Amino acid sequence: MINEKMHALGDEPSAIRELFAYGMERKAQVGADNVFDYSIGNPSVPAPPKVRETILRLMEEDPVALHGYTPAAGDPAVRDAVARHIRERYGVPATPGQLYLTVGAAAAIAISLAAVTHPGDEVIVISPFFPEYSTWIGMCGCERVEVPASVPDFQIDVDAVAAAIGPKTSAIIINSPNNPVGAVYTRQNLEALAAVLRAKEAELGRPLYLISDEPYREITYGAEVPYVPCLYPRTIVCLSYSKSLSLPGERIGYIYVSDLMDDAADVACAVAGAGRALGYICAPVLMQRVLAECVDEPSDVAAYAENRRILTEGLSALGYEYVEPDGAFYLWVKALEPDAQAFSDRAKAFELLLVPSDSFGVPGWVRLSYCIARDTIERSLPAFKALKESYEG
Amino acid sequence: MINEKMHALGDEPSAIRELFAYGMERKAQVGADNVFDYSIGNPSVPAPPKVRETILRLMEEDPVALHGYTPAAGDPAVRDAVARHIRERYGVPATPGQLYLTVGAAAAIAISLAAVTHPGDEVIVISPFFPEYSTWIGMCGCERVEVPASVPDFQIDVDAVAAAIGPKTSAIIINSPNNPVGAVYTRQNLEALAAVLRAKEAELGRPLYLISDEPYREITYGAEVPYVPCLYPRTIVCLSYSKSLSLPGERIGYIYVSDLMDDAADVACAVAGAGRALGYICAPVLMQRVLAECVDEPSDVAAYAENRRILTEGLSALGYEYVEPDGAFYLWVKALEPDAQAFSDRAKAFELLLVPSDSFGVPGWVRLSYCIARDTIERSLPAFKALKESYEG
Repeated sequence: MINEKMHALGDEPSAIRELFAYGMERKAQVGADNVFDYSIGNPSVPAPPKVRETILRLMEEDPVALHGYTPAAGDPAVRDAVARHIRERYGVPATPGQLYLTVGAAAAIAISLAAVTHPGDEVIVISPFFPEYSTWIGMCGCERVEVPASVPDFQIDVDAVAAAIGPKTSAIIINSPNNPVGAVYTRQNLEALAAVLRAKEAELGRPLYLISDEPYREITYGAEVPYVPCLYPRTIVCLSYSKSLSLPGERIGYIYVSDLMDDAADVACAVAGAGRALGYICAPVLMQRVLAECVDEPSDVAAYAENRRILTEGLSALGYEYVEPDGAFYLWVKALEPDAQAFSDRAKAFELLLVPSDSFGVPGWVRLSYCIARDTIERSLPAFKALKESYEG
Repeated sequence: MINEKMHALGDEPSAIRELFAYGMERKAQVGADNVFDYSIGNPSVPAPPKVRETILRLMEEDPVALHGYTPAAGDPAVRDAVARHIRERYGVPATPGQLYLTVGAAAAIAISLAAVTHPGDEVIVISPFFPEYSTWIGMCGCERVEVPASVPDFQIDVDAVAAAIGPKTSAIIINSPNNPVGAVYTRQNLEALAAVLRAKEAELGRPLYLISDEPYREITYGAEVPYVPCLYPRTIVCLSYSKSLSLPGERIGYIYVSDLMDDAADVACAVAGAGRALGYICAPVLMQRVLAECVDEPSDVAAYAENRRILTEGLSALGYEYVEPDGAFYLWVKALEPDAQAFSDRAKAFELLLVPSDSFGVPGWVRLSYCIARDTIERSLPAFKALKESYEG
């Protein structure tokens, strides 16, 4: 018999995927320019030129060595380069032995959870949250415990986290800059979280792992993004180059088990074991080598910053409520009726594709991915105006 | 607390890895030319020129589209190309909806097992077997049931398989051409297996899934490699391009859930769900696109065939016993003492790195990976002579 849980996961409707698929159909019907597709987080900024230059240069190397296996944790030279980057950038004594290159951030989170949890444990997430966290927590046989973010700033509600931690809690996942709301957790907020985790570790006599999901670390609009291991030593950083280097389909990222935690080597060992268990052999090697050259490349945030300005000014003038995003490329907008799905459905009549908030764990909002062409944003504003008027008529 | 099972996996000694690491050290000490390293299955033949040509051509395309996400099962155009290849090559009515591109064969097997098993099930493997099967079977909470291959031809012992199938059996993994012995299962052998599986399905009233692990399908020396779905409809093909296109570090392969099984769509759905659960988003996109162009490229088997000839003729003349390999690039040689580890250790004194058979589930043999430089093989023969003489003196 097939595994019914896996079948259910394969069969599960995804609001994002369904809206994206609807958009593909609709664009074929009425023309791509006439659909305002805010559904998906595929970067619209090209990869830095150095990525292409590096690939072209690598194509002159011996193909047997170039495309060969690397150790499971990644090519030693690549891990050296990433460790150096972390040391220079954040002042943390990062060693290559604590780095494990991954097939993107999704693999990094799935592996990290498998490494530090047991079936029956609880894992805390801050809602709204990236929907796949539920899948990976479930795969480990753990329970998801949702702690709503503070409103209206969408920082971590540290008191609520403290109340949610119990004898079964093994980990908490945070994501800053945040998908879907664009919040960046302040230093003060993260320091307060760290203090709570430290106190609870002492109280419970068990380690509490902080899994920091950081695909948007480089996509910010002036806000400081504190380096979490500096604030809480028992941090596992899950980073992806999908957004910062615009390589989402290439699946390259890493797990960094902070050198600062007292059980650093054991956690790194469990990470390596979990990678094996989940079927990973090594991260794609050509992209590993690209990473070695491009680890210091700055992200091109200017286009997203301009999109953000146009969209927020436009929606503000129309009277929409939203969370001012400090990072990532998502805008979290209050639906104009309590039922986000109904609002998203109505928006389709105006060719606006907005992801309802329910799959992120909260009702009443929509997520707009503004990593799209500027022109599309500008041309969508009259549609947002008409959508709003449709509720006022 | 970290997960002790994952820690144990991360910490587990691997005979292959340890020998490979020893080889690296030893080569640094005495010079690479003086170590005869038969430890690892990294292809020594370069990728076909078309791989490089395709990558260079793709580098002229729009980087945003090129490096973007694909659907979880892979780019539709790539799946079309692979499905066409399967239809034309094997006469099976393969449809792209039954294909799921993977991060190599390891991911394919891990995902397939998760899709068709439940905790407590039994999964049959034919020993000697690829050691990681145990890891992925264990990850699913299943028991591994070993059925020794027939001696001396190392075909499947079909009667023994029949005897091993019980009410908890959910799947059997086969691997032909085989790692580590190089056997290719004959049509007659596979037909007999299919007949047993069909009879047992009827008897038990539950489906029995045949997982066909096929990274070496294209590496053969004249033997027919029957297409398993043609013989047994409930087959899940796990194929990798690591060996056939010499791209092991790039991690590209696929799962093909045969269109011929009655529950084809449900199994494909469970495969998609299991891929999500294990943290896979999509196969690396650049290599997906390479695959679309290179799916019909023939493998360059000539170099391996010549290595095989030199090695088998040389060892035969020295009086070694081995299994004549019909495929893959491994030679399975009888150890000159019952303890394969002791034999492997003694071989080191002659600078011969031979993997002991214990980790493949059987005692008394060693595996030689002959995907190495021809010159190394030729220069190693005197060392094999001296090794043998050391047992005779």
